[in-house]
Amino acid sequence: MEYTKCINFLLTIAQHEVFLVFSENLSKFGITPGQYGVLACLWKDETLTPKEIANILRVENSTISGVLDRMQKRGLIDRILNPNNRRSISVRATKEGLALKEPVQKKIEELNDLVLRNFSPQEREEILSLLGRIGHLQLEQS
Amino acid sequence: MEYTKCINFLLTIAQHEVFLVFSENLSKFGITPGQYGVLACLWKDETLTPKEIANILRVENSTISGVLDRMQKRGLIDRILNPNNRRSISVRATKEGLALKEPVQKKIEELNDLVLRNFSPQEREEILSLLGRIGHLQLEQS
Repeated sequence: MEYTKCINFLLTIAQHEVFLVFSENLSKFGITPGQYGVLACLWKDETLTPKEIANILRVENSTISGVLDRMQKRGLIDRILNPNNRRSISVRATKEGLALKEPVQKKIEELNDLVLRNFSPQEREEILSLLGRIGHLQLEQS
Repeated sequence: MEYTKCINFLLTIAQHEVFLVFSENLSKFGITPGQYGVLACLWKDETLTPKEIANILRVENSTISGVLDRMQKRGLIDRILNPNNRRSISVRATKEGLALKEPVQKKIEELNDLVLRNFSPQEREEILSLLGRIGHLQLEQS
């Protein structure tokens, strides 16, 4: 098999290139792609536990805790007592975090259009669906 | 736009999942996916400069230099005087690096089949081609 036909190589190259574009453009709002992910969750559901956010974003609990620390320091989120269980902590967006919703969502749409600008609408559907299938597979180890 | 339809999110999740499978399986040969990339270049072209390898693998020169250091320490590659230009350094696979060719290439084919096992041959062609197009685009910044 040609190295350049290896799914791991192709995914890594494509992810790296697209991630750079998103990073650079989101830095103008003072956020990273990962922080955008957290905000997107909190724009949809007002309060979530760190564990719920980690599950939605498919990252480790230990990863999300560092991301939340930086976002709290930056004034984008608050940690509050969970309204449903006062022994646990929930996260919600601050006023500043909510104010980013409109401009950031607009930029995200633009970046998706930019990255996929040479794709037909059908190819665009196709790549999203195929990537979703790879990402959500519970792969057995051989 | 739904967060889960964002190309950056889908690529990151898929890459992470597939990279883990490749990492775990290649670790049985004592190599990382990145080191497999270097070996694949040297199995094809006997000697290459670090810069040529970095270009093929689409990584920074500074990244490749650390990878080559670890591979040399592990006995997989040698640095030699460039046969075409004795002021520059080339890289070649050692006997041990060459001995990995057959078993590692076999494993790589198996892992591609595993990761894409729920894809029809046509879908498999499709995902490789679409990823290649994303990865090789010179994206303009908006």
